[in-house]
Amino acid sequence: MRLTEQQQAEIAAARAQSSPTARATVAALEEMLFRAIPVLDHGFVRVIDYMGDDMAIVQAARVSYGRGTRRVSEDVGLIRYLMRHRHSTPFEMCEIKYHVKLPIFVARQWIRHRTANVNEYSARYSILDREFYLPAPEHMAAQSAANRQGRGEVLAGEEAAHVLDLLRADATRCYDHYVEMLNEDEGGARRDPSRRGLARELARMNLTLNTYTQWYWKIDLYNLFHFLSLRADAHAQYEIRSYAEAMLGTVAAWVPLAHQAFLDYRLGAVTLSAQMLAAVRRMLAGEAMDQASSGLNRREWAELMAALRGDAQST
Amino acid sequence: MRLTEQQQAEIAAARAQSSPTARATVAALEEMLFRAIPVLDHGFVRVIDYMGDDMAIVQAARVSYGRGTRRVSEDVGLIRYLMRHRHSTPFEMCEIKYHVKLPIFVARQWIRHRTANVNEYSARYSILDREFYLPAPEHMAAQSAANRQGRGEVLAGEEAAHVLDLLRADATRCYDHYVEMLNEDEGGARRDPSRRGLARELARMNLTLNTYTQWYWKIDLYNLFHFLSLRADAHAQYEIRSYAEAMLGTVAAWVPLAHQAFLDYRLGAVTLSAQMLAAVRRMLAGEAMDQASSGLNRREWAELMAALRGDAQST
Amino acid sequence: MRLTEQQQAEIAAARAQSSPTARATVAALEEMLFRAIPVLDHGFVRVIDYMGDDMAIVQAARVSYGRGTRRVSEDVGLIRYLMRHRHSTPFEMCEIKYHVKLPIFVARQWIRHRTANVNEYSARYSILDREFYLPAPEHMAAQSAANRQGRGEVLAGEEAAHVLDLLRADATRCYDHYVEMLNEDEGGARRDPSRRGLARELARMNLTLNTYTQWYWKIDLYNLFHFLSLRADAHAQYEIRSYAEAMLGTVAAWVPLAHQAFLDYRLGAVTLSAQMLAAVRRMLAGEAMDQASSGLNRREWAELMAALRGDAQST
Amino acid sequence: MRLTEQQQAEIAAARAQSSPTARATVAALEEMLFRAIPVLDHGFVRVIDYMGDDMAIVQAARVSYGRGTRRVSEDVGLIRYLMRHRHSTPFEMCEIKYHVKLPIFVARQWIRHRTANVNEYSARYSILDREFYLPAPEHMAAQSAANRQGRGEVLAGEEAAHVLDLLRADATRCYDHYVEMLNEDEGGARRDPSRRGLARELARMNLTLNTYTQWYWKIDLYNLFHFLSLRADAHAQYEIRSYAEAMLGTVAAWVPLAHQAFLDYRLGAVTLSAQMLAAVRRMLAGEAMDQASSGLNRREWAELMAALRGDAQST
Repeated sequence: MRLTEQQQAEIAAARAQSSPTARATVAALEEMLFRAIPVLDHGFVRVIDYMGDDMAIVQAARVSYGRGTRRVSEDVGLIRYLMRHRHSTPFEMCEIKYHVKLPIFVARQWIRHRTANVNEYSARYSILDREFYLPAPEHMAAQSAANRQGRGEVLAGEEAAHVLDLLRADATRCYDHYVEMLNEDEGGARRDPSRRGLARELARMNLTLNTYTQWYWKIDLYNLFHFLSLRADAHAQYEIRSYAEAMLGTVAAWVPLAHQAFLDYRLGAVTLSAQMLAAVRRMLAGEAMDQASSGLNRREWAELMAALRGDAQST
Repeated sequence: MRLTEQQQAEIAAARAQSSPTARATVAALEEMLFRAIPVLDHGFVRVIDYMGDDMAIVQAARVSYGRGTRRVSEDVGLIRYLMRHRHSTPFEMCEIKYHVKLPIFVARQWIRHRTANVNEYSARYSILDREFYLPAPEHMAAQSAANRQGRGEVLAGEEAAHVLDLLRADATRCYDHYVEMLNEDEGGARRDPSRRGLARELARMNLTLNTYTQWYWKIDLYNLFHFLSLRADAHAQYEIRSYAEAMLGTVAAWVPLAHQAFLDYRLGAVTLSAQMLAAVRRMLAGEAMDQASSGLNRREWAELMAALRGDAQST
Repeated sequence: MRLTEQQQAEIAAARAQSSPTARATVAALEEMLFRAIPVLDHGFVRVIDYMGDDMAIVQAARVSYGRGTRRVSEDVGLIRYLMRHRHSTPFEMCEIKYHVKLPIFVARQWIRHRTANVNEYSARYSILDREFYLPAPEHMAAQSAANRQGRGEVLAGEEAAHVLDLLRADATRCYDHYVEMLNEDEGGARRDPSRRGLARELARMNLTLNTYTQWYWKIDLYNLFHFLSLRADAHAQYEIRSYAEAMLGTVAAWVPLAHQAFLDYRLGAVTLSAQMLAAVRRMLAGEAMDQASSGLNRREWAELMAALRGDAQST
Repeated sequence: MRLTEQQQAEIAAARAQSSPTARATVAALEEMLFRAIPVLDHGFVRVIDYMGDDMAIVQAARVSYGRGTRRVSEDVGLIRYLMRHRHSTPFEMCEIKYHVKLPIFVARQWIRHRTANVNEYSARYSILDREFYLPAPEHMAAQSAANRQGRGEVLAGEEAAHVLDLLRADATRCYDHYVEMLNEDEGGARRDPSRRGLARELARMNLTLNTYTQWYWKIDLYNLFHFLSLRADAHAQYEIRSYAEAMLGTVAAWVPLAHQAFLDYRLGAVTLSAQMLAAVRRMLAGEAMDQASSGLNRREWAELMAALRGDAQST
């Protein structure tokens, strides 16, 4: 991640300002505010603004007049109860806004979550930066044999080097031709006066999907937890998971009680189907069981065994 | 509007606290924070929290690194351009949270706007206050003859007095029976030990639709403007319009530039159909015109004439 | 539920028409189409239209060109896989539209589900029918002692009779006064020519919350399953659960494979928190355990025990 | 647009099936069902399913028991009234589902409309086709000088040829390397047994943004009109406008009354700001006016003049 000096100065200026407010304020998140948390090779996540804190969840659940805290233990218990029973509206009362820099193919997965507000940098209006994602060697993986949408072992040696060469060369060449077709210098004048230059809204189609884009992304805490439950999960693609993990860190600073409840009741929880539950009951009654006698199909049996062994987020 | 002493104390305590923040902060809205703005006879609107300001709209539209302001005139121009061309996403980057006390029949109109977060006081879980809306004499109106969903002249004399008596007596009696059926005192014990008391979730069905409820309601600025364009409009029912107008005042304090653009391009604007536009063109070319020669039907002609006369939000 | 002769004739006429279509069609649901399924004392649910079937889920998941079926076992497996892993978008490709008649206090719970399209009968524009919900004796329950938002034992004898009298008398009186204030006969003329009559939008506030309203309600299958998982659950209030159960019957006719998967993986499933899962692991390893040694709080321990005993939808 | 023989056979088979239904059915849209309407060089739009018709809008608006038609003129008038006054819920009662093949950069604009259901072909799971968009000569345009996000004159001669060469060569090379990195044949076996092959979820990042993707896209009529009002507008980028125009044709077949009302009151309408309206009033009163005396800024004056001249969708 490289920020220009001007960008660094803008961030420093934003961090330096301070105003008094009577709104809910979280010191630990103020500390993170505006800072770019690096993700992947050129990406980042920055917290731009937030509304509410743990107590705002309690306050909304009670529709109370003031900050509405009672004894701490009651407030903790209420937040945990709301999370366990999948209440949505009290968590929706907190909101957070991020500035994210991310590869286009990650942006395309991300945008499928429709319950957020998004303002993306427009390649119809502006020119994208010369930055594209190249996987680190340990993330250059082969197709998984077991899972049609997953990765297997890491590529090694010559094959890895060759793949990296192809990715870098193609992204570079496509970007160079994008610039050539645009034929604009920084001030917007023609670089080669003998040519007109292709419209920005057309030239962008020559870029590869690992080119970085950026956006402002704003979401309420309930929907953010839903996003994180899918994208911080072990089955999520590594690249988007990296962003989810960076964001999970900001949530821990922002709403520590709700964050812990989320880990316990969502990210670390498993859902057992009616059939899985029946199998567990029989096991607890002392019955020896294998897949055949369980009544579960192979895949569900494997998922149940993984859950009972404690593999990460296994179902 | 009567707040209990405890409620007043909680509001005062919330207003007294102050923390430093690097977030966008609006002094004029801080001044209003938590205060109950009276609406109707027992209702109110209170601003509980907000995210962003006029410059946050600009910042998101430019996906910028810092606060992103340029010359003031450029920022004003951008906000007005975005409003005129109905851009949605930059306005979605601001968010506001209200605590509202309102009659149930108003809540039922209000909730039709689905793009907000709502946490309503639960009459399944708690007992509602003894407060119901009774229209002031100047709002006790007859059915409109011209408009099937509107009001006509104000009722007077005996009829008005009789209507008010009925409304008051029925709401009072229904509430008294609600309390009787519940059979609970404030601590939750039985008032009459010889009876069990009806479940809260059932007893509430005996209340009339003018009983007050309350909720936390959170919405982004784009969707708030949409709400206000419908509910602060002259065609909205007086009771919900009273809430919309109170909220419009908070928006003026919060985002004065966007508020002015909203007045100019939305609330004070008129949409002309293809046929209306054709009629205006012919008028401008000097043609004398009446409804028959305009090609518009009676209703559209009346709407066009009202718009050209400058009647408030007439189409 | 009483339908007027004209309503019955309209329903019969709609059922009698038949057109050929190349769209996905489900014979079992065609059989139910337009018919009023009675719910509570005066309510109903009617299926008005539907889009898609089980195979439309498969077709969308595969983004296929034709109906896209492979072997039946593969299609069944895919639907069950999608349900188990909480995929949303393929289920969103089916849509259903209902006409529902329901008490206002039920409508207020129902409308909290924001991901549906709703067209409610307007009491601002029209006059509501003289119909209000009165609980059957077996549903006239006391407040639960254990659960602040639940019912306990059924009221009996004199208390039940008294409650029913109050509910009936108040709803009737309020409705009578509503009619009196409106002062309109069926043709819209004044019943008492000496009075103007109160505007409909005001008069409605005198009605009690058990008055019936009606609406068209349209939703996709994914969000319908979410609604049903909350409202067909044992913890839902009896009155809204009655509607959910009637709708669940229509879903069984419409998409039998998805319906079965829903019963297995959602309605009959249990989510175990990280801590509950750890307790189950220790039990399976042979450890004797009670609440104290489990590390769970009392409430969670009770929920786990209920799940392992197989109480209905117990967590 | 090339469909494989198998795809053509699947479409023909779907078109050949016919079932009787009592649902609202539109013969003109049945005629179009499943057929691929070509868009751009390799794209298409296909109607897969629909719910409702013009009368379903009326039926929902009246919350009626049967098909609810009165006199045709009343129904037409109601639909036009609902459109003119921007009523949303009756139009939401109709739903349509498309299968669309489109370049990725178009998909990225399109997906910003969040109020639809989408199921996209997964390049994480499957391998994309070797198809990419290359603009026809008449659409190979230079950047607009006047509008930062628009096109100017068409490129000609050598420059056009060179741009086309670059686009074609880069897309081809990137796709070839994508295939090489995947190292899979159609059956999923390794093409070059000495290499593992890169995971699909990674290899896709090498594709250019003009590569075609495809999705199922389902939306209600209200939100479709909103999409079309933005994307069938003269200011929309040519490529997405091509899709919007193809869809507008399907809407004309499906709901002809609503479609005509949309053309009159939305697509062909203009919104005048409070200031523009004041200027029009002064003009109608006979005042000669230019930009300076109008009180409008240059841009708004130009927009008003364009509207009064009748330029297509000019504001």
